[in-house]
Amino acid sequence: MNPVENGKGDESLIIVMAQDATPEDVQQVVQRLEDVGAEAHISQGRIRTVIGAVGNRETIQQLPWEAFPGVERAVPVLKPFKFVSRDFQQEDSVIDVGGVLLGGGHFVPIAGPCAVESREQLFAAAEAVAKAGAKVLRGDAFKPRTSPYAFQGLGEKGLELLAEARDEFGLPFVAEVVDPRDVGLVSDYADLIRVGTRNMANFTLLAELGKQPKPVMLKRGFTATVEEWLNAAEYIYKEGNHEVVLCERGIRTFETATRNTLDISAVPVIKGLSHLPVVVDPSHSGGRRQLVRPLARSAVAAGADGFMIDVHPTPETALVDGPQAILPTEFAELMHEVRALALVMGVEM
Amino acid sequence: MNPVENGKGDESLIIVMAQDATPEDVQQVVQRLEDVGAEAHISQGRIRTVIGAVGNRETIQQLPWEAFPGVERAVPVLKPFKFVSRDFQQEDSVIDVGGVLLGGGHFVPIAGPCAVESREQLFAAAEAVAKAGAKVLRGDAFKPRTSPYAFQGLGEKGLELLAEARDEFGLPFVAEVVDPRDVGLVSDYADLIRVGTRNMANFTLLAELGKQPKPVMLKRGFTATVEEWLNAAEYIYKEGNHEVVLCERGIRTFETATRNTLDISAVPVIKGLSHLPVVVDPSHSGGRRQLVRPLARSAVAAGADGFMIDVHPTPETALVDGPQAILPTEFAELMHEVRALALVMGVEM
Amino acid sequence: MNPVENGKGDESLIIVMAQDATPEDVQQVVQRLEDVGAEAHISQGRIRTVIGAVGNRETIQQLPWEAFPGVERAVPVLKPFKFVSRDFQQEDSVIDVGGVLLGGGHFVPIAGPCAVESREQLFAAAEAVAKAGAKVLRGDAFKPRTSPYAFQGLGEKGLELLAEARDEFGLPFVAEVVDPRDVGLVSDYADLIRVGTRNMANFTLLAELGKQPKPVMLKRGFTATVEEWLNAAEYIYKEGNHEVVLCERGIRTFETATRNTLDISAVPVIKGLSHLPVVVDPSHSGGRRQLVRPLARSAVAAGADGFMIDVHPTPETALVDGPQAILPTEFAELMHEVRALALVMGVEM
Amino acid sequence: MNPVENGKGDESLIIVMAQDATPEDVQQVVQRLEDVGAEAHISQGRIRTVIGAVGNRETIQQLPWEAFPGVERAVPVLKPFKFVSRDFQQEDSVIDVGGVLLGGGHFVPIAGPCAVESREQLFAAAEAVAKAGAKVLRGDAFKPRTSPYAFQGLGEKGLELLAEARDEFGLPFVAEVVDPRDVGLVSDYADLIRVGTRNMANFTLLAELGKQPKPVMLKRGFTATVEEWLNAAEYIYKEGNHEVVLCERGIRTFETATRNTLDISAVPVIKGLSHLPVVVDPSHSGGRRQLVRPLARSAVAAGADGFMIDVHPTPETALVDGPQAILPTEFAELMHEVRALALVMGVEM
Repeated sequence: MNPVENGKGDESLIIVMAQDATPEDVQQVVQRLEDVGAEAHISQGRIRTVIGAVGNRETIQQLPWEAFPGVERAVPVLKPFKFVSRDFQQEDSVIDVGGVLLGGGHFVPIAGPCAVESREQLFAAAEAVAKAGAKVLRGDAFKPRTSPYAFQGLGEKGLELLAEARDEFGLPFVAEVVDPRDVGLVSDYADLIRVGTRNMANFTLLAELGKQPKPVMLKRGFTATVEEWLNAAEYIYKEGNHEVVLCERGIRTFETATRNTLDISAVPVIKGLSHLPVVVDPSHSGGRRQLVRPLARSAVAAGADGFMIDVHPTPETALVDGPQAILPTEFAELMHEVRALALVMGVEM
Repeated sequence: MNPVENGKGDESLIIVMAQDATPEDVQQVVQRLEDVGAEAHISQGRIRTVIGAVGNRETIQQLPWEAFPGVERAVPVLKPFKFVSRDFQQEDSVIDVGGVLLGGGHFVPIAGPCAVESREQLFAAAEAVAKAGAKVLRGDAFKPRTSPYAFQGLGEKGLELLAEARDEFGLPFVAEVVDPRDVGLVSDYADLIRVGTRNMANFTLLAELGKQPKPVMLKRGFTATVEEWLNAAEYIYKEGNHEVVLCERGIRTFETATRNTLDISAVPVIKGLSHLPVVVDPSHSGGRRQLVRPLARSAVAAGADGFMIDVHPTPETALVDGPQAILPTEFAELMHEVRALALVMGVEM
Repeated sequence: MNPVENGKGDESLIIVMAQDATPEDVQQVVQRLEDVGAEAHISQGRIRTVIGAVGNRETIQQLPWEAFPGVERAVPVLKPFKFVSRDFQQEDSVIDVGGVLLGGGHFVPIAGPCAVESREQLFAAAEAVAKAGAKVLRGDAFKPRTSPYAFQGLGEKGLELLAEARDEFGLPFVAEVVDPRDVGLVSDYADLIRVGTRNMANFTLLAELGKQPKPVMLKRGFTATVEEWLNAAEYIYKEGNHEVVLCERGIRTFETATRNTLDISAVPVIKGLSHLPVVVDPSHSGGRRQLVRPLARSAVAAGADGFMIDVHPTPETALVDGPQAILPTEFAELMHEVRALALVMGVEM
Repeated sequence: MNPVENGKGDESLIIVMAQDATPEDVQQVVQRLEDVGAEAHISQGRIRTVIGAVGNRETIQQLPWEAFPGVERAVPVLKPFKFVSRDFQQEDSVIDVGGVLLGGGHFVPIAGPCAVESREQLFAAAEAVAKAGAKVLRGDAFKPRTSPYAFQGLGEKGLELLAEARDEFGLPFVAEVVDPRDVGLVSDYADLIRVGTRNMANFTLLAELGKQPKPVMLKRGFTATVEEWLNAAEYIYKEGNHEVVLCERGIRTFETATRNTLDISAVPVIKGLSHLPVVVDPSHSGGRRQLVRPLARSAVAAGADGFMIDVHPTPETALVDGPQAILPTEFAELMHEVRALALVMGVEM
């Protein structure tokens, strides 16, 4: 055994040298580490030399190690995110959404239409979901659409209707923002601002959201790793807004029977890595009405802090995402099952 | 409206012609359909012609339509599998595993070590899982390993130990077969024969399994679509063995936080498409001990007919897949949660 | 044979009814089609009914057919994009990038540093790539970074340096824009404005770019299908800017030996579907210096209209993406090979 | 700087301890390493302890480190394969396929029908590809098919026809084997035995192939990483058969415009990691006739040692994979282009 003990900074990065690396190559790496105030712990095997870099994580991880002669690869030991990690904060974050607590044992059902289409449609849905036990209303005024020819949302008029519905049915609401220039507007109305899956890596938008006072729901990019998702949350957090809720909504895979593949494992994975609450969207992940109930139940059983479900009074007339919306009656039945599951899981609802 | 009504055979395939297809191209497709006894329903738009092929599904779907001049693509209307589909059999199949019923409302917990390593290890695990309420024992005598230098299993000696454990603890057992030449041997011992994820498309092995009398558990290939998985089940079924249990065990995606991504949606998707029971393997999908309990609970809530879990008395000494094995005490706690969830779901256990 | 002939509008969508759909379900679909001025072509098999919808594509494809009772699925026949398709324009589009023609037989090598770091770095790289035969300079002033702690670019100062380099070395330049509020600024300086992979589906940004006069290079989202990529191009095109160049840069897969998987097939696929030119980025797809030359040669052989390569005078000091930058000398050797390949391919360079 | 120098065995594995690991956890890992004759190099940061394990690679990498208390993850430094690596053999392997050299600068065009259907079909194709310059004939007698209802091949009769065609046209041939019980039979006839993509991880089959005298072409599993592919090659190699050719044939991704995504980067990646030759199959990766020529050209430009192309005299009558087969005239045109590219690349053909 051969212990090397010193405590200056983090063990941030392992640099694996190529088999044919020269002593000069090793020396160049060591020198560069020392230049930035870090330490090099060298471990020399018969075939390869491995260098452990100890020092300031941000500095070390950003250097282009794989561009150095003789370096085969660089393996990060510490994750690039910091404030959103469990290492930084042990206890669960609890987010206040217009008076409704979310996270840390508080399970929150969120429901409503995908897009606000009219007062009639919104109010019918809001009344039904409130009655069935939803705690937060969903409904969007701005929709990012794959096809430029699709319905793009009602804009500010939609936000006004949502605010009216909030007053009428006593439900705070969550709405999406797609343009950094609209952040102020949406922040004036909504209780929780959502970043959609296509904008998870829109760092311009994230930075704006970090500077306003409302909590943010950050949907996972449908092709983002958990680590990238937490990095995106870190963008918001480090600007000063610590009220972030994560939302798992399925990832893109080769499977075609569902729109996306709900990554249910992400729930316990996030719980291990981060103190932020995480909710699940069973509507957009599966993309089909029949999948909503089983996936919503799975979310509760996996330990999620809530779910968000598309409910539409007449799905076949929906302007956006009709195929996955469930009827108010189906939502009521689901809520009945969910209450029993929440009891088993020991969460408040 | 322009109805075309005739009932000879299935509407099997839609053939979309290219924009620049000539009338001769269309005629050649129609002629070929008529040659094989099928009918062509032509629908002519301003831009494209679309041909619906009605007749015998197997005949029509195997012709290489996209090799015909002027054909842009061919879209199957009916799935290629038949006997395993819900269309073929409405009610759920119930499988008898050495006296234990699985499917159709019977939820079966399966547990035990990944590989049989020794009598001590196997018996310690079997005793613990039997006591905690498992109904079927798992344990493998043949292991397909990615690296040729890894432990490959005890072979027939392992099967003998499993049979002894069955007698001792009253648990029928499931074991994997990896070579078509071993099917007879494994069939002599096991109550349920498993096809591993790497062999899902080993059609040679599937055909052998279709000809022996024991029920078969077919794990999903970690890169198979649900449709390919059901096609593989069809291979076994059409040889005469109708006792097939499907096992979802995660698919390969870009996410690296888990070994594979458990496709929990596959459970309700399969329930819609097929009458076969489906169980979930939360151990091999996540590849990490901490994920087993939340994923197992999700499986129950999603409507699975069982789960299969790696339990090892001393995971850190395991020869195969130690990182994902849970301890007997953890399994007992999990079973406690699962019983409550099964009650909510209304399944027998 | 049973022909149905009528030419009103496109055959846009095939609606496959479920096995247990009632005549009323079929009638409701037919009625809705007629309500929007479309025609229903019904083809009835023994098992299922299939309805072909003929009429206005945009109207028909946006209705939520899968939300209708009795509908199993809806299969689009025509692609959702229109102006960027080969059906709309047969001949190749040729784009003018500050006097350099790109597309339609004109192959354009684009090269330079990933990010502008300083005048010295930029000018050293620009001089070298100009001498080796590059026709357009790359270099970014705004960088979207996964980690909030990484270097984010020099901003307008970077654009000024790029404009100076253009004057000095006679190379028009391409630069990225990440914020819709910066579109005017970048448009004032750059000859070609790039949308990065993370912003491909940032529809707000795309709409702004459609309204300004400079040509746009649209990188493929690393998880976008070819169809979604062309939809994104359509967003820009329909706003009035017809000068769009596509850039393939690798997609996210399960493979970990490369940063992303260069989808070389996308080049001929795009050539079949669209009249827009397509270039390849071998630097960001592979993420490793050793892969740049073979991938760049492949791009030429596959029929791409250009490539874009990171060249850095001292990659190990790069602030962004050093591991994939090649040295000026390596670029010169690559250009030597590429000239010979271009000759074989019959393209001008 | 804090060097630790000792040369006993390989630096095989980096074990990263969790933030809350206790000194006892660290000690247990160190003890276990010492028990198996390995050394532990400990590097202690402010947040985490990292242990480098130096000793016998196979022993160390198979222990279930992530099952130990306090271990967060274990990162392998050395690859699990050995004999097929460049580290083991610097110079390129050259394989003798019935007198035709493949690899090490010898580029080999392989062509013929996907499946042998009849003497007429096989001989028409063989004559045409021989005339156009193919050096090896392809044609299968055993086909693994996704659907149990599809054509499964002519069996031994097909091998006899291939042997006749070899004599008639002077082309050695490659044919697939799908069952370990058929290895002897195929080995008696074929010059090169192919393992199909679905059997890449059929270790039973690989072991049999390692024990017979004919060279083996190992197709990449369509969902295998490069590392798993090389592990599969190691299975054959370590049994004593060193004549292995790798064949890249596309991987499964979310893209649906092609059947699979040709991973062209795998060619240079393999060249870096292994001494084995690698060929490309542009027919099965794209799955469409129009893609074959551009992808085949890309393969040459990327540095592949050959390609394998489906050529069928009448694709629209093909029993297997007609949509991707090119006509003999198209193959002749492709060979014309390829000769020019091979000249540029400096390979013999």
